[in-house]
Amino acid sequence: MADLHPQLEKDCIVLGKLELCHLLLMNDANYPWFILVPDREGISEIFELNEADQQLLLKEASRLGQFLVKYFKADKLNVAALGNVVPQLHVHHIVRYKNDISWPKPVWGQVQAVPYAPEKIDELKELFLLL
Amino acid sequence: MADLHPQLEKDCIVLGKLELCHLLLMNDANYPWFILVPDREGISEIFELNEADQQLLLKEASRLGQFLVKYFKADKLNVAALGNVVPQLHVHHIVRYKNDISWPKPVWGQVQAVPYAPEKIDELKELFLLL
Repeated sequence: MADLHPQLEKDCIVLGKLELCHLLLMNDANYPWFILVPDREGISEIFELNEADQQLLLKEASRLGQFLVKYFKADKLNVAALGNVVPQLHVHHIVRYKNDISWPKPVWGQVQAVPYAPEKIDELKELFLLL
Repeated sequence: MADLHPQLEKDCIVLGKLELCHLLLMNDANYPWFILVPDREGISEIFELNEADQQLLLKEASRLGQFLVKYFKADKLNVAALGNVVPQLHVHHIVRYKNDISWPKPVWGQVQAVPYAPEKIDELKELFLLL
Protein backbone atom coordinates (compact mmCIF):
# COMPACT_ATOMS: atom_id res chain seq x y z
CA MET A 1 0.00 0.00 0.00
CA ALA A 2 1.36 3.39 -1.04
CA ASP A 3 1.56 6.13 1.57
CA LEU A 4 -0.47 9.26 0.91
CA HIS A 5 1.61 12.35 0.19
CA PRO A 6 1.77 14.54 3.35
CA GLN A 7 0.02 17.42 1.56
CA LEU A 8 -2.94 15.20 0.69
CA GLU A 9 -2.99 13.93 4.30
CA LYS A 10 -3.11 17.53 5.48
CA ASP A 11 -5.72 18.90 3.05
CA CYS A 12 -8.07 15.93 2.79
CA ILE A 13 -10.19 13.42 4.65
CA VAL A 14 -9.94 9.76 3.59
CA LEU A 15 -13.43 8.48 2.77
CA GLY A 16 -12.53 4.95 1.77
CA LYS A 17 -10.83 2.67 -0.70
CA LEU A 18 -12.08 1.44 -4.07
CA GLU A 19 -10.39 -1.43 -5.93
CA LEU A 20 -7.53 0.79 -7.15
CA CYS A 21 -7.93 4.20 -5.57
CA HIS A 22 -8.28 5.85 -2.23
CA LEU A 23 -11.19 8.27 -2.28
CA LEU A 24 -10.46 11.54 -0.51
CA LEU A 25 -12.61 14.53 0.33
CA MET A 26 -10.89 17.90 0.04
CA ASN A 27 -11.56 19.76 3.28
CA ASP A 28 -13.00 22.79 1.50
CA ALA A 29 -16.69 23.50 1.87
CA ASN A 30 -16.59 25.90 -1.12
CA TYR A 31 -17.16 22.97 -3.48
CA PRO A 32 -17.94 19.24 -3.23
CA TRP A 33 -14.36 18.23 -4.15
CA PHE A 34 -13.21 14.62 -4.25
CA ILE A 35 -9.85 13.10 -5.18
CA LEU A 36 -8.97 9.63 -6.45
CA VAL A 37 -5.46 8.46 -5.52
CA PRO A 38 -4.33 5.18 -7.10
CA ASP A 39 -2.76 2.99 -4.42
CA ARG A 40 0.49 2.50 -6.33
CA GLU A 41 4.04 3.56 -5.45
CA GLY A 42 6.01 6.08 -7.50
CA ILE A 43 3.41 7.00 -10.12
CA SER A 44 3.01 10.64 -11.25
CA GLU A 45 1.29 10.36 -14.62
CA ILE A 46 -1.78 8.35 -15.68
CA PHE A 47 0.17 6.67 -18.50
CA GLU A 48 2.70 5.35 -15.98
CA LEU A 49 0.05 3.02 -14.55
CA ASN A 50 0.01 -0.40 -16.20
CA GLU A 51 -2.84 -1.02 -18.62
CA ALA A 52 -5.01 -2.92 -16.15
CA ASP A 53 -4.64 -0.12 -13.59
CA GLN A 54 -5.47 2.52 -16.21
CA GLN A 55 -8.67 0.60 -16.92
CA LEU A 56 -9.50 0.50 -13.23
CA LEU A 57 -8.84 4.23 -12.85
CA LEU A 58 -11.13 4.97 -15.80
CA LYS A 59 -13.83 2.75 -14.32
CA GLU A 60 -13.59 4.28 -10.85
CA ALA A 61 -13.42 7.86 -12.20
CA SER A 62 -16.40 7.27 -14.45
CA ARG A 63 -18.43 5.75 -11.62
CA LEU A 64 -17.48 8.54 -9.22
CA GLY A 65 -18.14 11.27 -11.79
CA GLN A 66 -21.57 9.95 -12.67
CA PHE A 67 -22.48 9.61 -9.00
CA LEU A 68 -21.30 13.12 -8.10
CA VAL A 69 -23.13 14.86 -10.94
CA LYS A 70 -26.35 13.11 -10.01
CA TYR A 71 -26.09 13.32 -6.22
CA PHE A 72 -24.98 16.96 -6.08
CA LYS A 73 -27.02 18.05 -9.12
CA ALA A 74 -23.82 19.53 -10.59
CA ASP A 75 -23.84 22.01 -13.43
CA LYS A 76 -20.41 20.69 -14.46
CA LEU A 77 -17.74 18.33 -13.22
CA ASN A 78 -14.10 19.41 -13.35
CA VAL A 79 -11.74 16.42 -13.66
CA ALA A 80 -8.01 17.03 -13.50
CA ALA A 81 -4.66 15.36 -12.87
CA LEU A 82 -2.22 18.24 -12.37
CA GLY A 83 0.41 17.31 -9.78
CA ASN A 84 2.69 20.33 -10.00
CA VAL A 85 2.84 20.56 -6.21
CA VAL A 86 2.00 16.99 -5.14
CA PRO A 87 3.74 14.55 -7.49
CA GLN A 88 1.78 11.48 -6.30
CA LEU A 89 -0.83 10.82 -9.03
CA HIS A 90 -4.20 12.11 -7.87
CA VAL A 91 -7.27 12.95 -9.91
CA HIS A 92 -9.48 15.83 -8.81
CA HIS A 93 -13.25 15.53 -9.26
CA ILE A 94 -14.81 18.87 -8.43
CA VAL A 95 -18.55 19.54 -8.54
CA ARG A 96 -19.18 22.98 -10.02
CA TYR A 97 -22.24 25.19 -9.99
CA LYS A 98 -22.89 28.24 -12.10
CA ASN A 99 -23.33 30.17 -8.85
CA ASP A 100 -20.29 28.82 -6.97
CA ILE A 101 -17.73 31.28 -5.67
CA SER A 102 -15.20 30.78 -8.48
CA TRP A 103 -17.41 29.98 -11.48
CA PRO A 104 -16.49 29.83 -14.36
CA LYS A 105 -12.81 29.82 -13.38
CA PRO A 106 -10.98 26.66 -12.35
CA VAL A 107 -10.92 26.42 -8.54
CA TRP A 108 -7.17 26.46 -7.94
CA GLY A 109 -5.78 29.67 -6.47
CA GLN A 110 -9.14 31.45 -6.35
CA VAL A 111 -10.35 31.56 -2.77
CA GLN A 112 -9.11 30.20 0.53
CA ALA A 113 -10.39 26.79 1.57
CA VAL A 114 -13.23 26.79 4.12
CA PRO A 115 -12.95 23.73 6.42
CA TYR A 116 -16.11 21.67 6.89
CA ALA A 117 -17.94 21.47 10.21
CA PRO A 118 -17.32 18.00 11.77
CA GLU A 119 -20.97 16.93 11.35
CA LYS A 120 -20.84 17.77 7.65
CA ILE A 121 -17.76 15.57 7.29
CA ASP A 122 -19.64 12.68 8.94
CA GLU A 123 -22.47 13.21 6.48
CA LEU A 124 -20.10 13.22 3.50
CA LYS A 125 -18.33 10.10 4.78
CA GLU A 126 -21.59 8.24 4.35
CA LEU A 127 -21.60 9.10 0.66
CA PHE A 128 -18.91 6.53 0.20
CA LEU A 129 -21.43 3.84 1.09
CA LEU A 130 -23.71 4.99 -1.74
CA LEU A 131 -20.97 4.94 -4.35
CA MET B 1 -18.80 14.42 -37.38
CA ALA B 2 -19.34 16.86 -34.50
CA ASP B 3 -18.60 20.53 -35.11
CA LEU B 4 -15.91 22.10 -32.97
CA HIS B 5 -17.18 24.66 -30.47
CA PRO B 6 -16.52 28.21 -31.83
CA GLN B 7 -14.24 29.03 -28.88
CA LEU B 8 -12.03 26.01 -29.65
CA GLU B 9 -12.00 27.03 -33.34
CA LYS B 10 -10.88 30.50 -32.30
CA ASP B 11 -8.23 29.57 -29.74
CA CYS B 12 -6.73 26.47 -31.38
CA ILE B 13 -5.18 25.00 -34.50
CA VAL B 14 -6.44 21.59 -35.64
CA LEU B 15 -3.46 19.24 -35.98
CA GLY B 16 -5.32 16.12 -37.07
CA LYS B 17 -7.74 13.38 -36.16
CA LEU B 18 -7.12 10.19 -34.18
CA GLU B 19 -9.62 7.33 -34.13
CA LEU B 20 -11.91 9.10 -31.64
CA CYS B 21 -10.53 12.57 -31.06
CA HIS B 22 -9.50 15.67 -32.92
CA LEU B 23 -6.08 16.80 -31.74
CA LEU B 24 -5.82 20.56 -31.31
CA LEU B 25 -2.91 22.84 -30.51
CA MET B 26 -3.73 25.77 -28.23
CA ASN B 27 -2.35 28.88 -29.92
CA ASP B 28 -0.34 29.89 -26.86
CA ALA B 29 3.43 29.72 -27.05
CA ASN B 30 3.71 29.96 -23.25
CA TYR B 31 3.31 26.17 -22.99
CA PRO B 32 3.13 23.18 -25.35
CA TRP B 33 -0.63 22.78 -24.88
CA PHE B 34 -2.69 20.18 -26.72
CA ILE B 35 -6.38 19.31 -26.54
CA LEU B 36 -8.22 16.09 -27.37
CA VAL B 37 -11.83 16.59 -28.52
CA PRO B 38 -13.87 13.40 -28.97
CA ASP B 39 -15.74 13.59 -32.27
CA ARG B 40 -19.15 12.96 -30.72
CA GLU B 41 -22.21 15.19 -30.56
CA GLY B 42 -23.66 16.51 -27.31
CA ILE B 43 -21.11 15.12 -24.83
CA SER B 44 -19.89 17.24 -21.90
CA GLU B 45 -18.57 14.68 -19.42
CA ILE B 46 -16.21 11.73 -19.91
CA PHE B 47 -18.73 9.33 -18.38
CA GLU B 48 -21.32 10.35 -20.98
CA LEU B 49 -19.24 8.64 -23.69
CA ASN B 50 -20.20 5.02 -24.24
CA GLU B 51 -17.82 2.43 -22.83
CA ALA B 52 -16.00 1.78 -26.11
CA ASP B 53 -15.43 5.50 -26.62
CA GLN B 54 -14.19 5.91 -23.03
CA GLN B 55 -11.64 3.18 -23.77
CA LEU B 56 -10.57 4.97 -26.96
CA LEU B 57 -10.23 8.28 -25.13
CA LEU B 58 -8.07 6.62 -22.46
CA LYS B 59 -5.91 5.02 -25.15
CA GLU B 60 -5.47 8.24 -27.11
CA ALA B 61 -4.84 10.34 -23.99
CA SER B 62 -2.30 7.84 -22.71
CA ARG B 63 -0.49 7.71 -26.05
CA LEU B 64 -0.51 11.51 -26.37
CA GLY B 65 0.62 12.06 -22.78
CA GLN B 66 3.51 9.64 -23.06
CA PHE B 67 4.60 11.20 -26.36
CA LEU B 68 4.43 14.77 -25.03
CA VAL B 69 6.40 14.08 -21.86
CA LYS B 70 9.15 12.40 -23.86
CA TYR B 71 9.25 14.77 -26.85
CA PHE B 72 9.13 17.99 -24.84
CA LYS B 73 11.11 16.61 -21.89
CA ALA B 74 8.30 17.78 -19.59
CA ASP B 75 8.72 18.13 -15.86
CA LYS B 76 4.99 17.38 -15.50
CA LEU B 77 1.92 16.90 -17.61
CA ASN B 78 -1.33 18.61 -16.62
CA VAL B 79 -4.37 16.69 -17.84
CA ALA B 80 -7.81 18.20 -17.34
CA ALA B 81 -11.41 18.09 -18.53
CA LEU B 82 -13.00 21.27 -17.13
CA GLY B 83 -15.55 22.67 -19.59
CA ASN B 84 -17.01 25.50 -17.52
CA VAL B 85 -16.80 27.85 -20.49
CA VAL B 86 -16.81 25.43 -23.45
CA PRO B 87 -19.31 22.63 -22.74
CA GLN B 88 -18.09 20.37 -25.59
CA LEU B 89 -15.97 17.66 -23.93
CA HIS B 90 -12.28 18.47 -24.43
CA VAL B 91 -9.29 17.19 -22.52
CA HIS B 92 -6.33 19.52 -21.99
CA HIS B 93 -2.80 18.07 -22.08
CA ILE B 94 -0.37 20.76 -21.03
CA VAL B 95 3.38 20.28 -20.85
CA ARG B 96 4.74 21.99 -17.77
CA TYR B 97 8.26 22.97 -16.79
CA LYS B 98 9.52 24.04 -13.39
CA ASN B 99 10.68 27.27 -15.03
CA ASP B 100 7.57 28.02 -17.08
CA ILE B 101 5.83 31.35 -16.58
CA SER B 102 3.02 30.02 -14.34
CA TRP B 103 4.71 27.14 -12.48
CA PRO B 104 3.56 25.64 -10.13
CA LYS B 105 0.08 27.13 -10.65
CA PRO B 106 -2.40 25.68 -13.13
CA VAL B 107 -2.21 27.66 -16.39
CA TRP B 108 -5.76 28.98 -16.57
CA GLY B 109 -6.17 32.69 -15.88
CA GLN B 110 -2.46 33.30 -15.24
CA VAL B 111 -0.98 35.09 -18.21
CA GLN B 112 -2.28 36.19 -21.59
CA ALA B 113 -1.81 33.75 -24.47
CA VAL B 114 1.12 34.46 -26.79
CA PRO B 115 0.26 33.40 -30.37
CA TYR B 116 2.82 31.24 -32.17
CA ALA B 117 4.80 32.48 -35.16
CA PRO B 118 3.43 30.78 -38.34
CA GLU B 119 6.64 28.77 -38.91
CA LYS B 120 6.43 27.38 -35.37
CA ILE B 121 2.87 26.25 -36.08
CA ASP B 122 4.09 24.42 -39.19
CA GLU B 123 6.74 22.71 -37.09
CA LEU B 124 4.22 21.67 -34.45
CA LYS B 125 1.81 20.37 -37.10
CA GLU B 126 4.46 17.85 -38.05
CA LEU B 127 4.40 16.45 -34.53
CA PHE B 128 1.10 14.84 -35.37
CA LEU B 129 2.92 12.57 -37.83
CA LEU B 130 5.18 11.30 -35.03
CA LEU B 131 2.31 10.50 -32.69
